[in-house]
Amino acid sequence: MTTIALSDWLLARINREDGPPLHRQLHEALLAAVLEGELPAGRKLPSSRLLARELGVARNTVIDVYETLAAQGCLETRHGSGTYVADLSVERIAPPGPAASPEAERAAPRLSARGAAVVEGARVFPRQWGAFMPGVPDVTEFPTRVWARLHNRHWNRAAPERLSYAPAGGLPALRTVLAEHLRTARGVRCEPWQIVITTGIHQSIDLTARLLTDTGDTVWLEDPCYWGLRHSLQSLGLKLRPVPVDAEGVNLSSVSGPPPRFIVATPSHQYPMGMVMSLPRRQALLDYARAHGSWIIEDDYDSEFRYGTRPITSLQGLDRDQLVIYVGSLSKTLFPGMRLGYIVAPLSLAAAFAEGVAELYREGQLQQQAMLADFIAEGHFAAHIRRMRGLYSRRRQALLEAIRAEFGETLPVMGDNAGLHLILHLPGLDDRAIAQAAVEAGIATRPLSGYYHNPGAGQSGLLLGYACVKEEAIAPAFATLAGVLRKFGA
Amino acid sequence: MTTIALSDWLLARINREDGPPLHRQLHEALLAAVLEGELPAGRKLPSSRLLARELGVARNTVIDVYETLAAQGCLETRHGSGTYVADLSVERIAPPGPAASPEAERAAPRLSARGAAVVEGARVFPRQWGAFMPGVPDVTEFPTRVWARLHNRHWNRAAPERLSYAPAGGLPALRTVLAEHLRTARGVRCEPWQIVITTGIHQSIDLTARLLTDTGDTVWLEDPCYWGLRHSLQSLGLKLRPVPVDAEGVNLSSVSGPPPRFIVATPSHQYPMGMVMSLPRRQALLDYARAHGSWIIEDDYDSEFRYGTRPITSLQGLDRDQLVIYVGSLSKTLFPGMRLGYIVAPLSLAAAFAEGVAELYREGQLQQQAMLADFIAEGHFAAHIRRMRGLYSRRRQALLEAIRAEFGETLPVMGDNAGLHLILHLPGLDDRAIAQAAVEAGIATRPLSGYYHNPGAGQSGLLLGYACVKEEAIAPAFATLAGVLRKFGA
Repeated sequence: MTTIALSDWLLARINREDGPPLHRQLHEALLAAVLEGELPAGRKLPSSRLLARELGVARNTVIDVYETLAAQGCLETRHGSGTYVADLSVERIAPPGPAASPEAERAAPRLSARGAAVVEGARVFPRQWGAFMPGVPDVTEFPTRVWARLHNRHWNRAAPERLSYAPAGGLPALRTVLAEHLRTARGVRCEPWQIVITTGIHQSIDLTARLLTDTGDTVWLEDPCYWGLRHSLQSLGLKLRPVPVDAEGVNLSSVSGPPPRFIVATPSHQYPMGMVMSLPRRQALLDYARAHGSWIIEDDYDSEFRYGTRPITSLQGLDRDQLVIYVGSLSKTLFPGMRLGYIVAPLSLAAAFAEGVAELYREGQLQQQAMLADFIAEGHFAAHIRRMRGLYSRRRQALLEAIRAEFGETLPVMGDNAGLHLILHLPGLDDRAIAQAAVEAGIATRPLSGYYHNPGAGQSGLLLGYACVKEEAIAPAFATLAGVLRKFGA
Repeated sequence: MTTIALSDWLLARINREDGPPLHRQLHEALLAAVLEGELPAGRKLPSSRLLARELGVARNTVIDVYETLAAQGCLETRHGSGTYVADLSVERIAPPGPAASPEAERAAPRLSARGAAVVEGARVFPRQWGAFMPGVPDVTEFPTRVWARLHNRHWNRAAPERLSYAPAGGLPALRTVLAEHLRTARGVRCEPWQIVITTGIHQSIDLTARLLTDTGDTVWLEDPCYWGLRHSLQSLGLKLRPVPVDAEGVNLSSVSGPPPRFIVATPSHQYPMGMVMSLPRRQALLDYARAHGSWIIEDDYDSEFRYGTRPITSLQGLDRDQLVIYVGSLSKTLFPGMRLGYIVAPLSLAAAFAEGVAELYREGQLQQQAMLADFIAEGHFAAHIRRMRGLYSRRRQALLEAIRAEFGETLPVMGDNAGLHLILHLPGLDDRAIAQAAVEAGIATRPLSGYYHNPGAGQSGLLLGYACVKEEAIAPAFATLAGVLRKFGA
């Protein structure tokens, strides 16, 4: 499509006399052009000046729309070169429709009960980037040059053991620097041999559940909590019991009955609500575990990102009884695609956990572990976290301001001054319908009610991730979302 | 340690008047020096000429011993530079003994029943390299320069989606080239959207089991089979039933009772015995599955490595009913540490499998997937397989000759002319005790009896992996093993 053809295509879809504001119409038309393939991946767009002249609109309108689309991941701005249609091809392979595949239609998928539950409840988005995808850090800020240098260093002469299966527990060099990092940054009390490298929180929880529970056992989860754990644990034959969360964190006094095999908790920054667990509640949790022989899994998922001053130590650091299994990952601090998490196992479990991970999953990726050990030891990790903390803090502020600019104080915002997302409460509104409409407008969010054990009984709201949106793109992207919210009466 | 100090240390451990042959004594003394840390990692050894003169032995003796130790992964030869002590540090972190950790000793590990089964039965070796480690390819032959070039290409401008979580099923570009490869190389009938990228056979089987079985269901495994699957499947609450294997492969006529949810089989190259499943047996397997509503998991684990001429198509290619779930990995063709496997799902299951892998494991590593897609598309994969096929074929031959040179025809060898290992039968001997003694002599092997459902009822033998041993090192390494075997009466 030439610039003129594009202008014509857009003009045919814009109604100057009637309908939504011009910038919203233009946004929707360009989004459609990208998603429907009219503008293929890699195509250079006309400059904002040129397109504005062709369309007869203000140049700022075009700039705004380009920025919104860039924030949505549909366009890419290459400095000094221009604006291009992003490659969205990672989501393009799908089974043909029934007409194209009569065989697939004839055969029902015959899943097991647990299999059907996994697939029916699947929540993974087709896209993993753009405003306001929660839980995704700004991976474009990752220092890829440093990473490339480390790659060259370790691949120039790769010891054969490094390309083979991982030894029990992972690469010692990485376990050593991680132990040091967790001791100083999170107050975790650990030795390198207590660290077990995994591919992330899913594997960390799966391993813990396989080693510490049997089919039919009960485990407790915070309510609300990260949805991704439910199917994993259920398909191991476990019974899940939700424990309500209030402003101080998980509240054990509201549950009774037989004690669980373990309790999964997020003391530093409750997921997804964002509050910090109070000290009395932490003590109550440890006391309960000791009295009833339960383990505690402490998921310290994004504790590096606190923008205020209050220092929070880990629950593991308070534990005097070796009852806490501490889990974390580098998905939020570096990039999710790395798939690197870790467990700090209690003394009595460390050897079993290290052997268990090797036996059950046969992991590898030792070259990446070696690169990462250097990345941490040479100070790049700490520097990256410091830098991202500044960026994310400003983005959070920008999102708060955008919310205030659109809605004043009418929509309450929740979440401590920390993390990668905040929650916009929508009392009385249908957050699932709103999230669906937002996706159709090019904005990814997750409905808060979906994090509850019983979604119908949960609070209504949207999780807005601000970490993977450039500061200048936040206001325009939120304006698009505000348009959706208003349609639903916000 | 200077050369003179080393010579003194060695001389103190060598008895010229009595005991085993000099080369074996020297081998054991040097091995002890490395394992006990007398010779630290990275230390350059004296040249064979110099050490031979110091010790007053033939130079060929020293050369032999150096080569054996290199084959064991304890020494590294750097061309033009000399011989160095290898870095064995990947196995060095271990919990302190009880004395150093009274807390750990006091607390029993309190594992669940399934957890205890995993840990007690763990079979993972501390080392993953050297003669005669089965199942490990020669990763030193992997074209790391090509890989580094691809790394630079993909990291120079990494699209943010590539650093985030993987879309359902994995990267389309990789799924597309893998489908093409499997169609042409293995006769697999598939479209790209049927391919689901996993981290290897463990995850492929785990996913299949979670989606197609419920707790308490029965599945059938070949007997003997890969030990790594048992704990995975058992800890999902499944009942495992062994099906005996004979010279034609798995024999369903020997079992009766209710049909299983799925049957795991290795038709191309039975693991670990090495025979090819006959066509009548293949047909019987497909007929059984169709008649009883069972699925078949075809593990085509090292089918690329056939050194004879007989072409074998996959079982999936014969299946007209969409009952076969085909699984494979690049662990054997490229390097195990890559952690990349794939499933070819039947038409009716493909969408569920793609969603299931994203939901249950939240995978990533899209940069590696993109590099690999290029690696395959640009012909490096096919070229590497061709080259390795030649190398492995010669190594297999060298091992057969070494066995014949030491034992004549007294010890039968089993296994088709294919794969990465062969089986040395040891009728009437205790293969576990022999494997243990071999490890102590620096040779890694696995006892055949350990692959049986009931080890006491299995055949006795050793799996000898020849793929990760350089051709010239095979005879000396086997001579060491022969010494062990003779002690046990072979």
